[in-house]
Amino acid sequence: MSNTLKKHWKTKLHEIIYEADTPAGKLFDIVLLIIIIASIILVMLESVKSFDTNYHNFLNISEWIITILFSIEYIARIITVKKPLKYIFSFYGIVDLLSTIPKYISLLFGGVHALAALRALRLLRVFRILKLARYLGASNTLLKALKASRVKISVFLFTVIIISITLGTIMYLIEGEENGFTNIPKSVYWCIVTLTTVGYGDIAPATPLGQFIASIVMILGYGIIAVPTGIISAEYASQNKTDKKIDIQLNSQSCQNCLAENHKDSSKFCYSCGEKLHV
Amino acid sequence: MSNTLKKHWKTKLHEIIYEADTPAGKLFDIVLLIIIIASIILVMLESVKSFDTNYHNFLNISEWIITILFSIEYIARIITVKKPLKYIFSFYGIVDLLSTIPKYISLLFGGVHALAALRALRLLRVFRILKLARYLGASNTLLKALKASRVKISVFLFTVIIISITLGTIMYLIEGEENGFTNIPKSVYWCIVTLTTVGYGDIAPATPLGQFIASIVMILGYGIIAVPTGIISAEYASQNKTDKKIDIQLNSQSCQNCLAENHKDSSKFCYSCGEKLHV
Amino acid sequence: MSNTLKKHWKTKLHEIIYEADTPAGKLFDIVLLIIIIASIILVMLESVKSFDTNYHNFLNISEWIITILFSIEYIARIITVKKPLKYIFSFYGIVDLLSTIPKYISLLFGGVHALAALRALRLLRVFRILKLARYLGASNTLLKALKASRVKISVFLFTVIIISITLGTIMYLIEGEENGFTNIPKSVYWCIVTLTTVGYGDIAPATPLGQFIASIVMILGYGIIAVPTGIISAEYASQNKTDKKIDIQLNSQSCQNCLAENHKDSSKFCYSCGEKLHV
Amino acid sequence: MSNTLKKHWKTKLHEIIYEADTPAGKLFDIVLLIIIIASIILVMLESVKSFDTNYHNFLNISEWIITILFSIEYIARIITVKKPLKYIFSFYGIVDLLSTIPKYISLLFGGVHALAALRALRLLRVFRILKLARYLGASNTLLKALKASRVKISVFLFTVIIISITLGTIMYLIEGEENGFTNIPKSVYWCIVTLTTVGYGDIAPATPLGQFIASIVMILGYGIIAVPTGIISAEYASQNKTDKKIDIQLNSQSCQNCLAENHKDSSKFCYSCGEKLHV
Repeated sequence: MSNTLKKHWKTKLHEIIYEADTPAGKLFDIVLLIIIIASIILVMLESVKSFDTNYHNFLNISEWIITILFSIEYIARIITVKKPLKYIFSFYGIVDLLSTIPKYISLLFGGVHALAALRALRLLRVFRILKLARYLGASNTLLKALKASRVKISVFLFTVIIISITLGTIMYLIEGEENGFTNIPKSVYWCIVTLTTVGYGDIAPATPLGQFIASIVMILGYGIIAVPTGIISAEYASQNKTDKKIDIQLNSQSCQNCLAENHKDSSKFCYSCGEKLHV
Repeated sequence: MSNTLKKHWKTKLHEIIYEADTPAGKLFDIVLLIIIIASIILVMLESVKSFDTNYHNFLNISEWIITILFSIEYIARIITVKKPLKYIFSFYGIVDLLSTIPKYISLLFGGVHALAALRALRLLRVFRILKLARYLGASNTLLKALKASRVKISVFLFTVIIISITLGTIMYLIEGEENGFTNIPKSVYWCIVTLTTVGYGDIAPATPLGQFIASIVMILGYGIIAVPTGIISAEYASQNKTDKKIDIQLNSQSCQNCLAENHKDSSKFCYSCGEKLHV
Repeated sequence: MSNTLKKHWKTKLHEIIYEADTPAGKLFDIVLLIIIIASIILVMLESVKSFDTNYHNFLNISEWIITILFSIEYIARIITVKKPLKYIFSFYGIVDLLSTIPKYISLLFGGVHALAALRALRLLRVFRILKLARYLGASNTLLKALKASRVKISVFLFTVIIISITLGTIMYLIEGEENGFTNIPKSVYWCIVTLTTVGYGDIAPATPLGQFIASIVMILGYGIIAVPTGIISAEYASQNKTDKKIDIQLNSQSCQNCLAENHKDSSKFCYSCGEKLHV
Repeated sequence: MSNTLKKHWKTKLHEIIYEADTPAGKLFDIVLLIIIIASIILVMLESVKSFDTNYHNFLNISEWIITILFSIEYIARIITVKKPLKYIFSFYGIVDLLSTIPKYISLLFGGVHALAALRALRLLRVFRILKLARYLGASNTLLKALKASRVKISVFLFTVIIISITLGTIMYLIEGEENGFTNIPKSVYWCIVTLTTVGYGDIAPATPLGQFIASIVMILGYGIIAVPTGIISAEYASQNKTDKKIDIQLNSQSCQNCLAENHKDSSKFCYSCGEKLHV
């Protein structure tokens, strides 16, 4: 009897932590979101020297509070899953761990720059919020369109890189070291800066011939942006039509056994491992 | 009898000020548009020092004329509406007030910089002209498409911000303070400048590794612009089809009682409060 | 008899000069194109000081040859049209005159800078080549799509200008003169530079708040480019479908009487004035 | 008998080198891809002075290894084709030769800068990989869409160039030499930099009128990017529909006699010369 009660408690917690359909689950996700955003703002503020010297104690205490909250969440996630190892070595499991430990490590070593590097990983944690966004049903069509045009986008990016290398090398030969094109990698960097229409101006062609070829690069870059746009537009439009026809209602449940997601509202068992779902 | 005449006069004025279907209503909107544009040009010219010193009197008098015209319009709007308080506390009501009072306040205080701040609000007034544009039937489909892709665009913007924060932090660690990446917020600012292909060049990567990651940011920014474009293209296209099928004729009438807009040509009563419409 | 022969000769010349369906007409257009391009290259080279001092005589003689060729063409155009005044005061008529006279005027006055200004007008002449492009059947669908989205594009551009003025003014208040935002027009210029993702970097925000608002401007500019793209995509796609269904064959004939163009292949009389067409 | 065996051996090699359907053919293409990428990285590293001085021997030996591998491949390609001259003078034949000989020439002359120029041509070789990409079935629809909108894109690019020349000349007259617009070609270069939203900032308008016209150029450039995007979106979408209906399975075979490609899976004879295909 006590065992079933315990199981019930674990199922409840699993629902709160991993899902977003119940009021408690939604609240948990929103609170988590706020804590993550707060932790990112803290990391940012710490890097601002004038702020760090004035409010060092405040930053340190806040950092500890967030670290403890993250630790509790990490432990809760391990407890409520049937196969904890699968969670621990999943993408989100690793991100969760890495975003929690830096402060504990700082107790032992206290190395300033290495810690900053570890803290940067905490930012990856925000990607979990995208999971929340998916539940809003917003990015499903988009993700499908992106997947459908995956190969085409790769071919496009590949072409961009080839053009950059070819024209970057040509510009290195034309402009030379005296105009800032000191070597081919730098020329290729300049070509990407120009082709993507970013145009820092830290390196800019000075010879008439160089400016002429730069103009071609610009017009090329200005024109070929139309290609991925056209691909995604068309794929998204056709995906959008299909989606409106089918329109399956997916919920935010996650299987307690194998963590599989995107179950249909009518599903009673996990489509991936057959575990009973708690609707 | 005098009462009905007065009511008739108020109804007429309401028609002129709030609607754009009658010749008088159109004329009123165009005159208002010209005055608003003139007032914005005045605010701009006042900020140019050489112009302000040479033509101070001209600017001052013009400013007073526009302020008085705005005041008359504001009072007329209050009189002709059945529920004046609803107008006063509506978005346009507040903008109308704030765009009129700065000159009166300058009589009492005359503080230069604070006044400039208040005058800046006058610019918000131009958004009323967008209302006029809507009556041209132009932006209806567009607004519907934007509303339909609201959530998707938010997810997109959110992704852009996460990428900026993540890559901005990485660049702060790579480039460091000696190359202008003095703190994480500034690095994130640089990342947004690069990702959106603006590329000021006030901060630019100097190390080979930094330039390599910057290249990735650029190609990323160059590519993901295709995403919102694809979304809006597809939504707009499907909206456009629906609109051409339905094609309800909406006019520029605004209910005298509740200020509700977008009435159908065939409507005789307000769809929102049931007040009789004056066709 | 001599009169009909003369008429026949004029009709023939009209066909060569104004149309592009006959081999002679095509040749004439191509030769004209080459001369226009050559004349533009000459104007460009003249502005390069080192080139002008070394090859002054060559440039002067070439300029005279082109001027005389343009003069002959201008006179031929007047002779072959039934209503010469209509041609003289048409857009192309004025452009033709203005692109021919600068050299003659230089004989009388010889003012250097004023002449450069007049020569610049010669460039407008190249737009006639676009007429040629239209005969390629290429831009018809495009022009229709642009016309169909005319109002929408205007509303979009108008919104861009309003955003630029509003945010430009706000940036003027935040950054102030010490950071290069010397007055509101300059701030608005900066805002357009940023919103359109050009980003010269001649003016760049220096305060944290300014950089934050600049980031918003950039993301805004990066995002709203999707709007006109979406509009034109959708309009062009729907136009493309209609055009493929109808697909009327238009030729490059131009009525000898009223200069009306875009006649159908089956037409025997001008749809605009009833004049007989010479097929 | 020995002759048929030899023929069989040549056919086998032809299959490996020219096609990508068999496992050996795929492996060959992937190995070739890796060698090409390695050779490009070598060319890049050689241009970095600090790297070249430290690892000169390593670079020299690697270069020789790659040159020998390229030579073997070049000879194998000539042997296995029935009409070797046709291959030698084809685009890929010339690229293959030019990407192989620079090192041999350096033995005879050893001129540094001329060699760099020849080595740059080696980069063109990477375009062969695009052939591989085509076999992935990815770029077929895209290429068709680009071909279908070829004329329209040309008209668009032509318009961009005309606008650049016209507005570049106007800016030269307004800004003049004192603000960096030293001659018309440079002004046109600036106009392309601005219109394509690259915006280096090496040349930037300084006069109010110049900044006003620059703003127009920017908004123009920001807006007209929508045009090619719209064209390609629509063409790609309609192409995509047609392709999904037909969906012919093409393979990567290349005729041993005439090098014709894109044979259907069911083809037994070359559609171009009638030679038997080895399925």
